[in-house]
Amino acid sequence: MTTPDPVHPAWLPPEAFRAIGSRRTLVLGDGLLAGTVHDEVARACARYGGRVRRGAEDGPHDLVLALTTAEPLPGLAEAVLADFRREAGLTERAIGAEGYLVARRGGVTVVLADDPAGLLYGLFHVVRLGERAFAAEPLLVPRRGAEHHRPAMRRRMLDHWDNVDVHPVMGQVERGYAGGSIFWHDGAPRGDLTRVRSYARLLAACGVNAISVNNVNVHATEARLLTDRLGDVAAIADVLRPYGIRVHLSVGFASPVVLGGLPTADPLDEDVRTWWACVTQRVYDTIPNFGGYVVKADSEGQPGPFAYGRDHADGANLLAEALEPFGGVVHWRAFVYNHRQDWRDRTTDRARAAYDHFAPLDGRFRDNVIVQVKHGPIDFQVREPVSPVIAAMPATRLAVELQVTQEYTGQQRHVCYLAPMWREVLGFRPWGPDGAAVADVAAGAAGGDGGPHGRAPDGGGLVGVSNVGDDPYWTGHPLAQANLYAFGRLAWAPWTDPAAILDEWIDLTFMPVATGDAERLRRTLHAIMDGSWRTYERYTAPLGVGFMVRPGHHYGPDVDGYEYTPWGTYHFADRDGVGVDRTRATGTGFTGQYPPPWSEVYESLDRCPDELLLFFHHVPYGHVLRAGSTVIQHVYDTHFDGVEQVAEARRRWEEAAGLFDPSLHARVKDLLDEQVRCAVEWRDQINAYFFRKSGVPDARGRRIP
Amino acid sequence: MTTPDPVHPAWLPPEAFRAIGSRRTLVLGDGLLAGTVHDEVARACARYGGRVRRGAEDGPHDLVLALTTAEPLPGLAEAVLADFRREAGLTERAIGAEGYLVARRGGVTVVLADDPAGLLYGLFHVVRLGERAFAAEPLLVPRRGAEHHRPAMRRRMLDHWDNVDVHPVMGQVERGYAGGSIFWHDGAPRGDLTRVRSYARLLAACGVNAISVNNVNVHATEARLLTDRLGDVAAIADVLRPYGIRVHLSVGFASPVVLGGLPTADPLDEDVRTWWACVTQRVYDTIPNFGGYVVKADSEGQPGPFAYGRDHADGANLLAEALEPFGGVVHWRAFVYNHRQDWRDRTTDRARAAYDHFAPLDGRFRDNVIVQVKHGPIDFQVREPVSPVIAAMPATRLAVELQVTQEYTGQQRHVCYLAPMWREVLGFRPWGPDGAAVADVAAGAAGGDGGPHGRAPDGGGLVGVSNVGDDPYWTGHPLAQANLYAFGRLAWAPWTDPAAILDEWIDLTFMPVATGDAERLRRTLHAIMDGSWRTYERYTAPLGVGFMVRPGHHYGPDVDGYEYTPWGTYHFADRDGVGVDRTRATGTGFTGQYPPPWSEVYESLDRCPDELLLFFHHVPYGHVLRAGSTVIQHVYDTHFDGVEQVAEARRRWEEAAGLFDPSLHARVKDLLDEQVRCAVEWRDQINAYFFRKSGVPDARGRRIP
Repeated sequence: MTTPDPVHPAWLPPEAFRAIGSRRTLVLGDGLLAGTVHDEVARACARYGGRVRRGAEDGPHDLVLALTTAEPLPGLAEAVLADFRREAGLTERAIGAEGYLVARRGGVTVVLADDPAGLLYGLFHVVRLGERAFAAEPLLVPRRGAEHHRPAMRRRMLDHWDNVDVHPVMGQVERGYAGGSIFWHDGAPRGDLTRVRSYARLLAACGVNAISVNNVNVHATEARLLTDRLGDVAAIADVLRPYGIRVHLSVGFASPVVLGGLPTADPLDEDVRTWWACVTQRVYDTIPNFGGYVVKADSEGQPGPFAYGRDHADGANLLAEALEPFGGVVHWRAFVYNHRQDWRDRTTDRARAAYDHFAPLDGRFRDNVIVQVKHGPIDFQVREPVSPVIAAMPATRLAVELQVTQEYTGQQRHVCYLAPMWREVLGFRPWGPDGAAVADVAAGAAGGDGGPHGRAPDGGGLVGVSNVGDDPYWTGHPLAQANLYAFGRLAWAPWTDPAAILDEWIDLTFMPVATGDAERLRRTLHAIMDGSWRTYERYTAPLGVGFMVRPGHHYGPDVDGYEYTPWGTYHFADRDGVGVDRTRATGTGFTGQYPPPWSEVYESLDRCPDELLLFFHHVPYGHVLRAGSTVIQHVYDTHFDGVEQVAEARRRWEEAAGLFDPSLHARVKDLLDEQVRCAVEWRDQINAYFFRKSGVPDARGRRIP
Repeated sequence: MTTPDPVHPAWLPPEAFRAIGSRRTLVLGDGLLAGTVHDEVARACARYGGRVRRGAEDGPHDLVLALTTAEPLPGLAEAVLADFRREAGLTERAIGAEGYLVARRGGVTVVLADDPAGLLYGLFHVVRLGERAFAAEPLLVPRRGAEHHRPAMRRRMLDHWDNVDVHPVMGQVERGYAGGSIFWHDGAPRGDLTRVRSYARLLAACGVNAISVNNVNVHATEARLLTDRLGDVAAIADVLRPYGIRVHLSVGFASPVVLGGLPTADPLDEDVRTWWACVTQRVYDTIPNFGGYVVKADSEGQPGPFAYGRDHADGANLLAEALEPFGGVVHWRAFVYNHRQDWRDRTTDRARAAYDHFAPLDGRFRDNVIVQVKHGPIDFQVREPVSPVIAAMPATRLAVELQVTQEYTGQQRHVCYLAPMWREVLGFRPWGPDGAAVADVAAGAAGGDGGPHGRAPDGGGLVGVSNVGDDPYWTGHPLAQANLYAFGRLAWAPWTDPAAILDEWIDLTFMPVATGDAERLRRTLHAIMDGSWRTYERYTAPLGVGFMVRPGHHYGPDVDGYEYTPWGTYHFADRDGVGVDRTRATGTGFTGQYPPPWSEVYESLDRCPDELLLFFHHVPYGHVLRAGSTVIQHVYDTHFDGVEQVAEARRRWEEAAGLFDPSLHARVKDLLDEQVRCAVEWRDQINAYFFRKSGVPDARGRRIP
């Protein structure tokens, strides 16, 4: 299958399959996904002259992709499996769900998996290796033993905030910066699902195995996807299934009233329970591998259990009960806060909200409820501490939600490679250096290597808000493809170095089609992308204070934009100082939501990390940071530096013109122009704002407008 | 005709016609509008038992409404006319266009007019008088001689910013706060024009004689009203015509390209001129009394002559040439400014823009071009100086544009009776006490009593942006009806006392249906409304600085909302002071756009009126106002006072519950609750903002959040 001409192939250009397609491959095993593996190889062979056999070993092979259940296994594969089992001291079928072994024996590369999904992921592993998968020296595939890969997270999910109807304010995709939806167009499903099929391949190649196909804000038309428009969802599910991806659906909590005509949606009402049971039965009759429901309840105007005097556990358990017979899960979002705060009341703190609502409910959720927690306590700002909810619900399955779509990080007009931020979040240890990490909590007892704390029976996995649309480059900014790729890879292997993920992405996306000096291309992309998140942080809101964006669309600066609104999260800047006092001693007490040592570290003005200082403390402009400069001078310095770094990125990109496809190069160049413009705007507004307030001139005498 | 049940009759409840309807009336004269006069009286008589004759004097009458051209005139009418002509030393038909005489002779009230429109306005004069028109003593109608009424402005026009299609951001009515449009609904004309007919009566009763039926921002569908959807406009024109109201149309300057398929809209291109001539011919073939075109060109993204290297005179004259053969006019808006300003550049000044663009073009416009100037140099803020353009184009017909819809004055959720502001604007004398007033400029040589300056051959009249929608009360806030009424009355007679206009409105609207103590009702409304504009000013942006509103919707406070944007007009508040330096000495030089004495008064920090201080000067917070307090203390005081005044208005309204229709009372009560809430929000945000910046505490120790 070739993606349609105007669509960029992202990290699966046909050339990425050259190494496989020019060799002899054997595929062993039954099932839909094993068929997908065969078809992928066959397509590559048709292009590059290799051959593929399925189910019958007739002659020598360069690559064997086999299910452990296949009989008979080729001798080489049997040997690899036996070695693996012996070394690991494991019994049969122990590669694990979705996992695979990869080894090289006697000039043959062997991939083994217990289930067809693992085989598919193994295939893409070989794709990533390319020629190196077959090389004699140096070896990336072990000659003795085997590399064992399995996903840290059982569920690696993308939430699409796509609307079926074009929303009058939010458009076709809420917080979407890459054109329309690949699923929906102007009230109807897209008839042609070619893009969805291509998307499924891309996701399988980076490890994503679940998609929610509609916005968590469920409007009238979208609500009906659950009932009379279920066929639209089934059509998508059919296209995703061969790539091991399940469909989930965002549903409205008021559905029994809105769709079912019941007088109530009370989660304890018998008719309501019956309604959900019947509706869910029908969903599974139609889509047997349906994943489950996603719910945003009692949040930003969405209906929920509060209307009936019930709590989030009651609400989530209602849906979980309906899904349980079919193995489905409910993702219940913890993004609940009062968006009608009084800004005059400094004791109210939006950062506290998720913990205050959910921590007391720990232990009350059914096993197939996944409480989905945004990684920070606020809302995907460029810098936040990790949400304390993640350490507060040991008896609950928690999923950590990341925002791949760049709502607050440049909206896919700015280069902002987010993997370094996500890696920091996933590696954060809420209980200190000896405790589990965020990644361990999300992985649950089944995965990770963390300590004894905060381990639910099973983790909820990693969820990302998708950054994909019908843009020819998928993500608007061509380099934003790396965020989508990195999300999948970190959900699979959260301890991976973001620079290594970037290398993978570069190798797949650009190397097979590179037009010039490949190493220079690689250096250019690393120079532009590796530090781009910290660069973005430098020229935007300083020191963790956050939310200095234009209300509504959230692009570009507006220092006071939310300062006097009911939405919460402010900076409280006055002529003397800036920051939010969230200490227990004198502030909102938010620091007390963390376990030690962080409850103490954040509480302490001396120990609090610089980059979060204004998130936790209100300080004078002259306060000296641990790094040595004053707060106000830090603001000036980082903002001048940030702009210079963006300008340097643009310069690097311009120099690399000959190395990239001209139209891709031109697109990125235009976007870098906009990024420089916007960074200058941020710098000047932030600097002018704080200069006007503080009256402190820049120590280096630079111009502040 | 009765207005449909759920629609409030505004200032024409059936009971307002009781005095006429219970008497004997003779109507003399031909023409459509004389027929309207007859029909209005006949309808009243059907209700109240009087009788009306037309064209034949058979028996005694209490009221004679006659055209001076009618033959034979009754003796009494002949006598009134002869007296009038003798006293005025005038020749025949000298009552003037749309004017009328009213007199009382021998127990008969006589109304005489030269044209049918005058007769209609005379009828509504009698309606306003009610029983007093027929009373023996005290007399409001003179026994000797006659009262002579004629409009100061030839054109008294309402611009509807109504969209045909619902605009995704602006909705059905741009800056509309009274529901949908009475003309358009969701892409189509309203089939039922009953509301339009009722509207026409209301407008005729306050003197409006022209309507533009679509938004000055002309989108795709609205552009076609000029051509293939012209029939929709004609249908409206048919309903308005019997009430003496002409239809105007907002057109897009790019129409020759967009609608006509020409390669250019260059105003000097021969094909473009021909296109406009042909299109306009067709408009007049369809709507013989069509008024003309309204154009917003090269403003806020609308197309215009600049694209072709031409100027506004070229553009306006193009359309004027096409309209001239039919007596039509083009209203060419002077609301032109750079909305992509650099906020860092303090030399750019949006206030200067209209003058800079238009003053140099004085004398270049054709006779049937009316340059339509917003009353202030910015954009309908609660306090602005008068636009210097009004004094800068003596050889051009100027219309002054007021905003009846309360975009920046509470959006018809706040009581804000605007007639006092308008009266100040109209009475302002740009050349000093001996020169003409703004009203004289708008009236032109034909009207007013001003001095020799600034008098175009004919004035352009008064234009208001309508505040009407399909809300049952027409204007959302029931008391906002008074603004619509007052607009018409001031366009007719700009020197009228706003409190007297309010009395007229109260008498018509409430007195005939008052349920209790009528005088208490009147006192209540005066207490709430007379000072409501100044109250609104007190609790919003201080001292003329303006534009501290939420960007986009413009409701509620956001002190920095526009401070760092490309839209212009800022306050430049820092820790030391606030205001915009528009002086010639050290600022943008805007003061130099005024003739003396105002060029000197505004330039001088000592002489500048307090209420405009921050519009013209940047001053320290400790600067002492002419009124005695410091700027910062003035900010605190007025904001606390403003809220108290709104609370007092609410108290007065609650006390008056028994005096009003319960549903009207309830609506206003709800709105006053919102007004109090919003006023508190303004007070607290403005006070908190300036306290945080200045650090100066309130001298009276009140709480600032």
